Amino acid sequence: MSLTGVLRPGHVSIRVLDLPAALTHYVDRLGLIESDRDEQGRVYLKGWDERDWFSVVLREADAPGMDYMGFKVDSPATLDRLAGRLREFGCKVERIPAGELKHCGERVRFDSPTGHSFELYAQKDYLGTAMGLQNPDPWHEECLKGMQVQRFDHCLLYGDDLDGTVKLFTEVLGFHISENVMDGELRIGCFLTCGMKAHDLAIIRHPEKNRFHHASFMLGTWEDVLRAADIIGRFKIPLDIGPTRHGITRGRTIYFFDPSGNRNEVFSGDYTYYPDYEPIRWTADSLGGAIFYHDQALNERFLTVVT
Amino acid sequence: MSLTGVLRPGHVSIRVLDLPAALTHYVDRLGLIESDRDEQGRVYLKGWDERDWFSVVLREADAPGMDYMGFKVDSPATLDRLAGRLREFGCKVERIPAGELKHCGERVRFDSPTGHSFELYAQKDYLGTAMGLQNPDPWHEECLKGMQVQRFDHCLLYGDDLDGTVKLFTEVLGFHISENVMDGELRIGCFLTCGMKAHDLAIIRHPEKNRFHHASFMLGTWEDVLRAADIIGRFKIPLDIGPTRHGITRGRTIYFFDPSGNRNEVFSGDYTYYPDYEPIRWTADSLGGAIFYHDQALNERFLTVVT
Amino acid sequence: MSLTGVLRPGHVSIRVLDLPAALTHYVDRLGLIESDRDEQGRVYLKGWDERDWFSVVLREADAPGMDYMGFKVDSPATLDRLAGRLREFGCKVERIPAGELKHCGERVRFDSPTGHSFELYAQKDYLGTAMGLQNPDPWHEECLKGMQVQRFDHCLLYGDDLDGTVKLFTEVLGFHISENVMDGELRIGCFLTCGMKAHDLAIIRHPEKNRFHHASFMLGTWEDVLRAADIIGRFKIPLDIGPTRHGITRGRTIYFFDPSGNRNEVFSGDYTYYPDYEPIRWTADSLGGAIFYHDQALNERFLTVVT
Amino acid sequence: MSLTGVLRPGHVSIRVLDLPAALTHYVDRLGLIESDRDEQGRVYLKGWDERDWFSVVLREADAPGMDYMGFKVDSPATLDRLAGRLREFGCKVERIPAGELKHCGERVRFDSPTGHSFELYAQKDYLGTAMGLQNPDPWHEECLKGMQVQRFDHCLLYGDDLDGTVKLFTEVLGFHISENVMDGELRIGCFLTCGMKAHDLAIIRHPEKNRFHHASFMLGTWEDVLRAADIIGRFKIPLDIGPTRHGITRGRTIYFFDPSGNRNEVFSGDYTYYPDYEPIRWTADSLGGAIFYHDQALNERFLTVVT
Repeated sequence: MSLTGVLRPGHVSIRVLDLPAALTHYVDRLGLIESDRDEQGRVYLKGWDERDWFSVVLREADAPGMDYMGFKVDSPATLDRLAGRLREFGCKVERIPAGELKHCGERVRFDSPTGHSFELYAQKDYLGTAMGLQNPDPWHEECLKGMQVQRFDHCLLYGDDLDGTVKLFTEVLGFHISENVMDGELRIGCFLTCGMKAHDLAIIRHPEKNRFHHASFMLGTWEDVLRAADIIGRFKIPLDIGPTRHGITRGRTIYFFDPSGNRNEVFSGDYTYYPDYEPIRWTADSLGGAIFYHDQALNERFLTVVT
Repeated sequence: MSLTGVLRPGHVSIRVLDLPAALTHYVDRLGLIESDRDEQGRVYLKGWDERDWFSVVLREADAPGMDYMGFKVDSPATLDRLAGRLREFGCKVERIPAGELKHCGERVRFDSPTGHSFELYAQKDYLGTAMGLQNPDPWHEECLKGMQVQRFDHCLLYGDDLDGTVKLFTEVLGFHISENVMDGELRIGCFLTCGMKAHDLAIIRHPEKNRFHHASFMLGTWEDVLRAADIIGRFKIPLDIGPTRHGITRGRTIYFFDPSGNRNEVFSGDYTYYPDYEPIRWTADSLGGAIFYHDQALNERFLTVVT
Repeated sequence: MSLTGVLRPGHVSIRVLDLPAALTHYVDRLGLIESDRDEQGRVYLKGWDERDWFSVVLREADAPGMDYMGFKVDSPATLDRLAGRLREFGCKVERIPAGELKHCGERVRFDSPTGHSFELYAQKDYLGTAMGLQNPDPWHEECLKGMQVQRFDHCLLYGDDLDGTVKLFTEVLGFHISENVMDGELRIGCFLTCGMKAHDLAIIRHPEKNRFHHASFMLGTWEDVLRAADIIGRFKIPLDIGPTRHGITRGRTIYFFDPSGNRNEVFSGDYTYYPDYEPIRWTADSLGGAIFYHDQALNERFLTVVT
Repeated sequence: MSLTGVLRPGHVSIRVLDLPAALTHYVDRLGLIESDRDEQGRVYLKGWDERDWFSVVLREADAPGMDYMGFKVDSPATLDRLAGRLREFGCKVERIPAGELKHCGERVRFDSPTGHSFELYAQKDYLGTAMGLQNPDPWHEECLKGMQVQRFDHCLLYGDDLDGTVKLFTEVLGFHISENVMDGELRIGCFLTCGMKAHDLAIIRHPEKNRFHHASFMLGTWEDVLRAADIIGRFKIPLDIGPTRHGITRGRTIYFFDPSGNRNEVFSGDYTYYPDYEPIRWTADSLGGAIFYHDQALNERFLTVVT
C-alpha cells in the first residue's frame, strides 16, 4: 500500500446498456461471481480470489462508460485525513453514506482534473473466497468459470489534464509513477501504483474529459490469457487486440469489448514494482513497442475508442 | 508414418536474398543450429531436437521463396517404389544423386499439380542432438537460442490445382487429410499429414502456381510462443500475425517474415491426429475463425502475401 | 501408425473394487466422460478429446488390476492378418465377437510372454467430441472436469519374459522401440510405440507375470500437471510421486492411486518420435535419473507396487 | 511497502565453504549475476530483474548458514526512526558505516528474539537491469542463465522465540502476518510480509536459535519451476523436494541444496496479499497439506535440516 494508506483499487462501477447481456459477459465469460443486487437494480460482482464483497458494480444506463472507480484505504482515520487533503487540493469532495452501495462503508467521492470520479472507502464487508481462511486449498474448481479472472485490477482512463490527475494521485494519495510515456517533454501517458503491481491506475492524455478506456482483470499466467482468448473466439466476443504483450508494464494481455462497448482487459502481470524505483520512460518514437511490444505498431482502434 | 512409408517432412530449401542476414534470423532468432555449408554456398541448419544432419537449407538467390520440400521415407526400397508410383501418377520424376545435398542420400525429386517441387529421400547422416542417445538429459541450455525451435515442422503452400496435389499426396504417398476448408463444394484449403501431427503439409487454392506461404517450426508450449513473440518485438522482426490460435489444427502460433520476405511460423501443436479420423470440415462462412480463432476475422496480408 | 496398421492404444479394462468410488475418481477427478454402461455392470469412459465411444472400461471385481489392453488397427483386413501372425508367433488367440464390449467390433484377444492379455480391434463406434467435426472450437469448457485428461495414452506393465513380449510387439505388430533400459546386457525395461508418441506401451522386467503398473492419461501441458496435482492435494488422492519429469520419454508427470489401488499417471509428453530413430539407451548406473530426472533417485514404492 | 517504510528484503549474506563451487551454483545454475567482489573476498550477486547493485553476498567461511538478512527502507529518516524503535523494543542495535558492504549505505544491524541478525538500510547503488529504464524490453536473452531467478525473495528461518520475532517485525517494523501455522494455541510458524507478496520473511518454531532453513528466489511461472528442476536433474544438484506446491502461500516451488549444504528455494508465487487481509490459519492436523499440498505429508528432511 502507499505510505498514505491507500490499499488498492477496490471497485469500479460500469454502465451497461443491457444488464442480462452484461451478466452473461461478466459472469459466464469473464468468470466474475455475482454476490448481490440492490434495489436500484445494480449487480455486484467479485473475482474468485477477492475477499471483499464486491469489486465490480454493473449499472444499467443509456450510455456505456465508467461511473467511478473506488480505492480502499486502511482505516477510517485515513479516510478522514485523505478527504481533508483532497479538499485542500481543490477537489469537489462528497461523502456518500455507508450502505449506498450494499456491503460498503462510507465513501469519499472526489473529482479529478481529467474529469473522472473516484472514491475512497475504508470498509467493505468480508465475503471471502470459497477456500476460506483455515487450511485453504489454493483454488476450487467449482469457483472457476470462463476466463477465471482472479480480481479487478486497474482502470485505464483518458482525459485532458493528465498532469493534474497525476499530481492529485501522487501528492495527495501517495501513488507512485511506475512508467511515463513522453512525447518530448509532454507526458502523454502515466502509469500509477499504490502498491507493488506495475499499475493500479493508468491515464492517457486525450482532448475530452472523463473517458473510459478499459477496466482490467487479473489472470495468473499467459496460459490463462490463451484460455481467455479461446473463450473470446468461441463466443465471438468482439476482440480488440491480443493476445500480446505490452512494453509498458510488460503485461501479457488481451483486450475485448463487453456487449455495451466497454473495453475489458484480462492480463497477467510480469514484474514486481517497488516505490524506490525510478519511473520507466517511454519515448514517442518507441510508442508502437511501448503499447504492443510484439507488433511494434500502433493500433487506431486501441488508441481512440473509449466509452 | 504413413502406411506407404513416408516418415516426415525432412527438409525445406529456402531462397534468401542476403545470406548473413538470413543466418542472423534463422540461427540467432529462431535458434536453428548451423550444421554445415557446401561449395555452392548453401547453409545447412537443424533444430536442437532433430537428429538428422539438417532440415533447412538456405540458398542465396535473387528472389525469395521455396526451392523444394523433402520428405524422408523409411527405406531405399520405399524410395524406389514411390518413385515408380509418382511416375505412374504423371509426375516428372528426377533422381538426384546422393551428396548433392551434403549428408543426404539419393533424392527423388517430383513436381506437383500446384507447381511445387517436392522430394523423397531415404537416408540422411545422423548428427544427433547434444543430449545424445545414452542417458540423455531432456535438453541442454547451451543448445537453446532465440526462439528455441525444436524442429522444422511443415510448409503451407499456395497453388492452383489444389485437388491434384491432394490426390498426389493421398493416393500415391499415403498422406491423410486431417482438415479441409470448403467453399460450398469447392475445397479451398487442405491439411495433410503422414503421421500423428495435425499437418505435415498444407495447401491453399490460389490462382498462381508454386507459391510459398510459410515454413513452420515446432515449439513445445504456448509459453514458447510468447518467448518467440518477445524476440520478434525486441529485434523488430516484421510480425505478420499473432500470438494467436488457429481454428484449423488448433495450433498456437505466431507468424513473421525473414529478412528476405519469406514468412515463417513458430507454433505449438494441440492435438494428436490418428489416421482413422474423419477430416474436420471448415466452411467458408466460418473462415475467419478457422484461420484466426480469437479474432474470427480474416487478415488480408496473411491471405495474400506469398513468396 | 505402425507399418503393420496398428493405430494406437484404444482401450484398457481396469478392475476396481468399488464402482461408485471408481467413478468419482475417474470421472470427477481425472475428468473422463461416462459414455455407456452394459448389462455386466461395466462402465465405459472416454477422454474429452477422444472420438471413439470409449477408451476405458471399469469392471467391478475382487482384486484390482488390468484385464486387458486393446489396440485399434486400421482395417478388418489388418485384424485378420495380424490374428494369423499372432498365432504363428505362438500366441493363444481368441476372437471375441462384436458387441461383447458395447460399441466395439470384433476383437482379437491374445496373450503375451509376460502373461498380459492384449486385444486388437478394427472398429469402434464414433461418438465424437463435443466440438464436433464441422468448424470445431478447440475445446469446450463444459467438457472439462477435474484433471481434464485428453485421452487414454498408454500402459506400463510388469512381467517376466520382457524380451518375449518385446519380440511379439516389434516383430508381429510392427511396434518400434523408443527407449531401452539396460542392466549391462540385460534389458530391464522397454518403451514401445506404434506411432509418434514416445510410448504406447512400456514393459518392465519383473519376476511375476501379468502385473499392472499403471494406466496413463494424456494432458496438454506442465500447467495441466500442476492442476492435476492440486486436485490430488485437495481430494487427498494417494499420491505416488510427482509432479516430476521422467528421464525416459522426457514426460512431465504425476502418479497416484485410484481407490482400488490401481496406479494412474497423468502426464504431458515432450518429444516427437519417428521410426527411424535409434532407441535411446539407459544404463543401470543412471537408473535414478532415467526414472525420476529431478531427484536422480529410485523410489521403492514406484518400483515395486503393482496390481 | 509497510506503513513504517520498509520496502522489501534487500539482501542476504550466505556463508559458503568453497567460493568457486558456490559461484558455479549461484551464478551458473541459479542464474544470479555477479556484480562485484570486495577485499574480504565476498562476492556480490543480483537477479536479472533487480535494480540495486546486489541482493546476495557470498562469504567463504567454515560453516554454512546465514550471516544476516537486510531490508531496504524508503529513506534515511525512516532508517533513523526505526533504529530508535528497535532500541526501544530491546534489540541490540549496531550502525554499520556505508561502504562496509560495497555499494551499500549505512546499515542498522539488529538481533532478534530468535537469535537471527537482521539489517535495515536506506541506500544502495543503482546498477539497473540490462533492459534499462528507457523503452525497455521485457527481458534480454543474454541475461538469462540457468534457472533464471528474477530476484532474491525471502528467507525462512528457524528459532526458539518465534512470538518474540513476530512481535518485533509486526510492532516495530510494520510487517503484516499473512499466514499462521498453529498447533492448538501455540503458533509454530509465521509468514510475514512488508508488501504484497505472500511472504518476505517466514519463521518456524525450533528449539535452537539462529538457524537458517532457506533463501528463496523468485521465478515467474510454473514452467520456470520445471526448468529449474531439469537443471537440478542435469547437474545432480541435491534435491530436497519438489516440484510441488505449498498450501501455505500457494507457492509453486522446488527446494535443493547449494554445495555447502545451504537450502535454496526457487518458486513462483500465486496470490496477491493486501494488508487488510485476515491471516490464513493452518492447523496442526492439516500440516502435511499446509507444507506440501500435493503429497499432504510431512517430510523429515525438510522439517529438520537447517544450517
